[in-house]
Amino acid sequence: MSEHLSQVETPSLILDLDRLDRNLARMGAQLAPWPKVAFRPHMKTAKCVDVARRALPQGGPIMVSTLHEAEYFFGHGFDDILYGVGVSPDKLPRIARLAGRGAKITVILDSVAMAEALCGFLAAGGPPITVLIEIDTDGHRSGVRPDAPELLEIGAVLSGAGALGGVLTHAGESYQARSLEDLHAYAELERSGAVQAAERLRSAGWAAPVVSVGSTPTALFAQDLTGVTEVRAGVFMFQDLVMAGVGVCSPNDIALSVLTTVIGHQASRNWIITDAGWMAMSRDRGTERQAVDQGYGLVCDMAGAPIGDLIMVSANQEHGVIADRAGAGLDLSAFPIGSRLRILPNHACATGAQHGAYTVVRGEEILDRWTRERGW
Amino acid sequence: MSEHLSQVETPSLILDLDRLDRNLARMGAQLAPWPKVAFRPHMKTAKCVDVARRALPQGGPIMVSTLHEAEYFFGHGFDDILYGVGVSPDKLPRIARLAGRGAKITVILDSVAMAEALCGFLAAGGPPITVLIEIDTDGHRSGVRPDAPELLEIGAVLSGAGALGGVLTHAGESYQARSLEDLHAYAELERSGAVQAAERLRSAGWAAPVVSVGSTPTALFAQDLTGVTEVRAGVFMFQDLVMAGVGVCSPNDIALSVLTTVIGHQASRNWIITDAGWMAMSRDRGTERQAVDQGYGLVCDMAGAPIGDLIMVSANQEHGVIADRAGAGLDLSAFPIGSRLRILPNHACATGAQHGAYTVVRGEEILDRWTRERGW
Repeated sequence: MSEHLSQVETPSLILDLDRLDRNLARMGAQLAPWPKVAFRPHMKTAKCVDVARRALPQGGPIMVSTLHEAEYFFGHGFDDILYGVGVSPDKLPRIARLAGRGAKITVILDSVAMAEALCGFLAAGGPPITVLIEIDTDGHRSGVRPDAPELLEIGAVLSGAGALGGVLTHAGESYQARSLEDLHAYAELERSGAVQAAERLRSAGWAAPVVSVGSTPTALFAQDLTGVTEVRAGVFMFQDLVMAGVGVCSPNDIALSVLTTVIGHQASRNWIITDAGWMAMSRDRGTERQAVDQGYGLVCDMAGAPIGDLIMVSANQEHGVIADRAGAGLDLSAFPIGSRLRILPNHACATGAQHGAYTVVRGEEILDRWTRERGW
Repeated sequence: MSEHLSQVETPSLILDLDRLDRNLARMGAQLAPWPKVAFRPHMKTAKCVDVARRALPQGGPIMVSTLHEAEYFFGHGFDDILYGVGVSPDKLPRIARLAGRGAKITVILDSVAMAEALCGFLAAGGPPITVLIEIDTDGHRSGVRPDAPELLEIGAVLSGAGALGGVLTHAGESYQARSLEDLHAYAELERSGAVQAAERLRSAGWAAPVVSVGSTPTALFAQDLTGVTEVRAGVFMFQDLVMAGVGVCSPNDIALSVLTTVIGHQASRNWIITDAGWMAMSRDRGTERQAVDQGYGLVCDMAGAPIGDLIMVSANQEHGVIADRAGAGLDLSAFPIGSRLRILPNHACATGAQHGAYTVVRGEEILDRWTRERGW
């Protein structure tokens, strides 16, 4: 193909290949000082085997957020898969089927009840499933605290069934970081909490070899990985405005954008109306409480460069409204009906999920089209 | 099929057939006093031919929000299609191809520039396309004001090319209504503004037969449709928590829900963790600024009845957090790991769009599975 972006139907999801490669190289350089620490990219952001192969040219372990992703990536040759959402009893037969086809599946849980349910399932026969105990290192969501009595109760159940693989934590609160010091602190919170939990399990006499940590902010800013065996991250591949607001990247690192066409103006309000609404951008307003609220996205020209202070200020299903961030007047004749813009997203995972494929570009030239997976 | 909801994988999109039928019947009863006014349901909410056939058993006109929807519904026998997003020059060839296959296509626009572009396209040959001028009756988004000089300028261009069909308006601001008086007022704003615009065009000597108005709140609460030839609405089929907050329906009318499985608890915070995050619910927080903020959705039991004041208070990609609205303590043993809940959505259009199919139920019994369309 040597098509130009002007030939694509809008709205379309655009993936800038050079930026993707730069983001992948950055993570590689960040983790290079720790060659024994495995890197397990989270495929929930990309949901695309072409991206996975770019991230892991020699293959390697991956993390997924749905069993559909697990089945899809296994079907494309990725056989070491961590399902990163607390497992429930109803999902065990489907996981066992995948393990029975040869996948090395790791699941996570954070309760005695679920550990017992899983061990009961394993005792009834079927292929092995490795379990990591989810550790809550930052009060974000799920997991047991590193010092909680329940950690050892879960460990006892899993170890007795030979299913204990170790521990996993995700400092989701690192998205609240606002300084380099915060980023370093969240990374150390993950490391120290996960290592503490693993040591407690080991002190009880159980093998707990895996210590898995990660999020894009903590993976990119970790200064010490002592005791860690595995780092995970997903958004880093594409980056987004939320990550830019956290200080993890700049808008110029964001590899994902939505191509849109100008369909009208409201001159009295200095509004540009486009055909990319929330269906194309998602309803994610992740920058709303950051220092710079980017609305539904930062507006760029066809080459991907931001245009002054233009943001997408509001969204209906298939309409976007673009205006100056501060409400300044615009020369609307610079944005005639039919002209095109690219919008950088707040949240790459959410915007990506609204689309069935990536239009892969270098500059404004279309290189390829990569399909994305959806559903559960 | 005679499967039970407990057998479905989660998260899944559930459509309650009895509630859908009741919502359709309500709109039929509301519009019955005006038998000469056409009803054109908006299929952007359902995106499903099975729902369209239920809404229009004898066939009839429909509205769509994307050209993909237009092609899909035309392929399933719906040939009178209004594309309800301001048309742009790049989309004309695709529209013309559909018209060339026999579809009666109507488009909307609100500028002289686009009217000239469209008439230029028509002059080059090809099948006829009817145009409605989009009228801004409430300052919501697009359109020309009923009294704007530009209305006649656009009318002159379109009429000269034989493409002027009439006018269309959508009082999107009716979603801000908070009382019965507000609802009546928005409906009258639509009617009077659209009729005024049509009369101005007719006074200039041009045929402008179509006067199309609508939104779910205004369609359901219009008291007078004098001069109106067509009413449109979409969300009414499913209803949602935003519509309940506007006073258009009650939560018990909401036909759409997301089935989810409990995957964990955080006892110290009185949190129930589920496998329905924003990927299943969407990021839509449409009730955030209403009198009752429903978080990411109102939590119901398997039969679809709300459970006290439980709402989904936060969402990650594949995790939902359920808690009491006021933070009250919960008996978490009533929600064991593996148990199931249904969550009513803020916004039916947004939540539906996250899924590829409906599991159609009556009570807890599964009747059918209907696929949904996505993309552009």
